Amino acid sequence: MTPAALAEYLHTHMPISRAMAVSVVAASVDEVIVEAPLEPNINVHGTMFGGSIATLALLAAWSVVHLRLKSVGFAGQLVVQRSQTEYLGPINGTALAIARLDLEHWDGFIEQLQRRGKARIGAIADVLNRRETAAQLSGEFVALGEPKR
Amino acid sequence: MTPAALAEYLHTHMPISRAMAVSVVAASVDEVIVEAPLEPNINVHGTMFGGSIATLALLAAWSVVHLRLKSVGFAGQLVVQRSQTEYLGPINGTALAIARLDLEHWDGFIEQLQRRGKARIGAIADVLNRRETAAQLSGEFVALGEPKR
Repeated sequence: MTPAALAEYLHTHMPISRAMAVSVVAASVDEVIVEAPLEPNINVHGTMFGGSIATLALLAAWSVVHLRLKSVGFAGQLVVQRSQTEYLGPINGTALAIARLDLEHWDGFIEQLQRRGKARIGAIADVLNRRETAAQLSGEFVALGEPKR
Repeated sequence: MTPAALAEYLHTHMPISRAMAVSVVAASVDEVIVEAPLEPNINVHGTMFGGSIATLALLAAWSVVHLRLKSVGFAGQLVVQRSQTEYLGPINGTALAIARLDLEHWDGFIEQLQRRGKARIGAIADVLNRRETAAQLSGEFVALGEPKR
């Protein structure tokens, strides 16, 4: 999936991503990078609102799990079960979220999904402000359904 | 502050709250209740996107700390430092977030804010779907500045 195709998918099916003016920089089964400008996501102090920061990170994390599941033919549900965000510093410009999968557990995750139709996997996302990490999200996702064998 | 005044404040200074169509049901120094409709916050599965759920809960939690700080004359910064959200079930209609302060630690928080100009306080928010708890957020906030003595 191209970055533009993922952006179009998110904007269409998760309209809050459009309201946040989220764009997709990179989209693969290993990594998803998304960004959002400050203005639509600003808070009362003139920096980026924590809700938007966490949402941007969650969009990136969800997307990388989604793309990798799609690549093995999975067409079920993928929902977040738990997320934790640490806010390390203010974001005063465009925020860039880089999400990576917990690849170490991927094979076991797919195996359990095939056996039980339900499995959990983690993903993390770093959010950068001018190349410095300003926030980190750790998410746990549940997939429901069966991947193609 | 009336619910309408808080809604106006959020919509003006945190525009993502307007994009989410957030409205304020109750606003006091003890409790803030906000709600958001499904449509602008929907996900690929037709239920509410986890990012919107966590953002709604964070808005409620931030607001109750903000209102109580405002009531003691504080005019500094209030930012989120950490947030954790547990997603217990899907939200298929309007989401209602109810936030309450960690009142047990309030006096110590104010004392530290006066002494050091910086202090931390927690707040929690439950998010309801048709009167059932569908998500829970726990947030830790940092206030920077001095309350009036």
